[in-house]
Amino acid sequence: MSTINPPKDPEADPRVKAVFDDIRQTRGSDFINNVWRYLAFDPKLLEEVWTDVRDLMATETLLDAKTKEMIYVAVSIANSCQYCVHSHTAAAKARGMSDAEHAELLKIVSTAARTNHILNGIQPPIDTVFDMEKAGNPA
Amino acid sequence: MSTINPPKDPEADPRVKAVFDDIRQTRGSDFINNVWRYLAFDPKLLEEVWTDVRDLMATETLLDAKTKEMIYVAVSIANSCQYCVHSHTAAAKARGMSDAEHAELLKIVSTAARTNHILNGIQPPIDTVFDMEKAGNPA
Amino acid sequence: MSTINPPKDPEADPRVKAVFDDIRQTRGSDFINNVWRYLAFDPKLLEEVWTDVRDLMATETLLDAKTKEMIYVAVSIANSCQYCVHSHTAAAKARGMSDAEHAELLKIVSTAARTNHILNGIQPPIDTVFDMEKAGNPA
Amino acid sequence: MSTINPPKDPEADPRVKAVFDDIRQTRGSDFINNVWRYLAFDPKLLEEVWTDVRDLMATETLLDAKTKEMIYVAVSIANSCQYCVHSHTAAAKARGMSDAEHAELLKIVSTAARTNHILNGIQPPIDTVFDMEKAGNPA
Amino acid sequence: MSTINPPKDPEADPRVKAVFDDIRQTRGSDFINNVWRYLAFDPKLLEEVWTDVRDLMATETLLDAKTKEMIYVAVSIANSCQYCVHSHTAAAKARGMSDAEHAELLKIVSTAARTNHILNGIQPPIDTVFDMEKAGNPA
Amino acid sequence: MSTINPPKDPEADPRVKAVFDDIRQTRGSDFINNVWRYLAFDPKLLEEVWTDVRDLMATETLLDAKTKEMIYVAVSIANSCQYCVHSHTAAAKARGMSDAEHAELLKIVSTAARTNHILNGIQPPIDTVFDMEKAGNPA
Repeated sequence: MSTINPPKDPEADPRVKAVFDDIRQTRGSDFINNVWRYLAFDPKLLEEVWTDVRDLMATETLLDAKTKEMIYVAVSIANSCQYCVHSHTAAAKARGMSDAEHAELLKIVSTAARTNHILNGIQPPIDTVFDMEKAGNPA
Repeated sequence: MSTINPPKDPEADPRVKAVFDDIRQTRGSDFINNVWRYLAFDPKLLEEVWTDVRDLMATETLLDAKTKEMIYVAVSIANSCQYCVHSHTAAAKARGMSDAEHAELLKIVSTAARTNHILNGIQPPIDTVFDMEKAGNPA
Repeated sequence: MSTINPPKDPEADPRVKAVFDDIRQTRGSDFINNVWRYLAFDPKLLEEVWTDVRDLMATETLLDAKTKEMIYVAVSIANSCQYCVHSHTAAAKARGMSDAEHAELLKIVSTAARTNHILNGIQPPIDTVFDMEKAGNPA
Repeated sequence: MSTINPPKDPEADPRVKAVFDDIRQTRGSDFINNVWRYLAFDPKLLEEVWTDVRDLMATETLLDAKTKEMIYVAVSIANSCQYCVHSHTAAAKARGMSDAEHAELLKIVSTAARTNHILNGIQPPIDTVFDMEKAGNPA
Repeated sequence: MSTINPPKDPEADPRVKAVFDDIRQTRGSDFINNVWRYLAFDPKLLEEVWTDVRDLMATETLLDAKTKEMIYVAVSIANSCQYCVHSHTAAAKARGMSDAEHAELLKIVSTAARTNHILNGIQPPIDTVFDMEKAGNPA
Repeated sequence: MSTINPPKDPEADPRVKAVFDDIRQTRGSDFINNVWRYLAFDPKLLEEVWTDVRDLMATETLLDAKTKEMIYVAVSIANSCQYCVHSHTAAAKARGMSDAEHAELLKIVSTAARTNHILNGIQPPIDTVFDMEKAGNPA
């Protein structure tokens, strides 16, 4: 049940078809999941979102693909996006995340959330040693 | 400016001293940052939080220490915890996160946030292929 | 599936009936959507929420009705309220929001979310020029 | 540093003065904290917010005043409102919350946050026994 | 529809069986709700989460059981965890929360959310009187 | 106090200089606010964020500039980004938002937050009439 009425024949629009073709080629699969079918209601938004996600997640960058998907899942959990949690957990698993790593991801996310709430409740002063502008980058 | 009045001489309490000693030994450093100094207002809560964080973040687990800190930062950003963002960004840098990796982390976190909000706005049906209960774990 | 057991015959309670009558008259429609049917479990809460929403959203104020609904949708997306996103997207469309405007709304909301997360991650000092208390209102 | 330029002499406006008088009388104190001094930039908004907060928090209702303030703090932590955490933690302490109860509040809030994130990550089906609409209210 | 493929016969694992036995004994009921059935995919995570929740929520502490569940619900609402809102609202009702108290809880949570957003929008300076570190604990 | 150590002479990097020149030209002002000075630590991220924000917020689109900034503020409040609330409230005022409109924006944002929390607490079923996929777009 969506707030959008997606086009019945999205690839009738050549801009949508170009994106869907690129999705299929990038992933080596004919499957187009719902996020793209619904975003097709506005071809420009579809193009922007796909390009942004593809260049970051489906392209070789500094971090490996599995790590990137796990970070993506972490943010999606904290922002309570059900669709995103499902799709990016599946993507992380497809990139090799084992059940044990999934459990560890949930452990990190939930421990972070726990201390986030404690510290937002206590609001201690931020140690000056954490000021990267003064300290410079320790790495 | 905190909601807590931290003890002036926290290590006068032997439970607090034991935690602080463990922090110093675990980290190989004499520096105790504010989160622990303020949590000392309740030794039991201090013990629980330190044990939880130590066993996950300062112990060898499946994921490497830098990756764990980057996931921790991601969640802390999404939950808008200023102290946590500062302390865990510093920890990630201390574990080897370069400026370029920091920029990529921010790129992943913010792209995830972008699509989280688009999909919470559209609410497309979740593809049945993402149902791990039916599909089994693809990994 | 709700946390509330709504009354089977809500208008048997005269306070509920008065609110439902006001909803029908304000909207010029016999349709009462679920939020009001479920809030009827507590007539006082129902009265307060309806009065608050009616006086702001169904009354002429400074901003036009379509703009108000679009802002309402934006907040509901960020707070991840599925029901609210659905009901206020429908309301915005009923007040004239086109598909293209809906796409632009999603673009603004998601771009804001993107920079919100980047800046919560970087935490730059707030420019003093933004201090309205010192600068006065530029408008 | 605020987004608002508050009036220098707020009580020159009789609507503001009436609210400030009511705050002083309700609280039995001459102190007016910043939220009200800044909201005075719009007397109508000031009136609405004060009336809403007063009728709920400074009036005898079902729950006792300390419990109400502790729930208020819990929500303010989860929504990351620094001012609100400070002001309502102070209010809870003024209504009798001890340091040990404060620590327990932080423990509950952070444990809830922990499981909130784990369950938003796992997304198990909601047990039908929790459907109050079918089950009726067990209390 | 879950991101996890839960074990079909969870109690075949003795660590899971020990937790499920403890849940049944602690609650005096044979019913095991889904959160535990799904967490059984990782026995260590299951043990940690159950122990944490049991020691806080099913053990006598400073705050009474009903109040603790109401605070838990408040946080779960703010974090938009559907499963948690359902399960802990049911728990609060089982511990005596009446419909009128449920309505008051929703009133407090939503009024807090309202002022959280107003104050995050205005960002007034935090009154120095709220600085517990300087003021000491007024309680 | 930032997690980033911004370059002391950012425009020594020609990619940064090109962005800063474009900011100055687009805005008709020599002032470069901190978000861009800190993002300069990674020229590629700076380019991406500036291009994204410029094309949406500083370019003529369907919605007028003041409305776009008000929606941006609404999301930034809900996501608790202090810097963003300050900078985009200032931008909205620079584009003509009056104090009375600012107050109305805060009223809408906080009323939405109020009902977001109530409905996340009640979780009523979403009315089928809101299903745009079945109903088509009413506008």
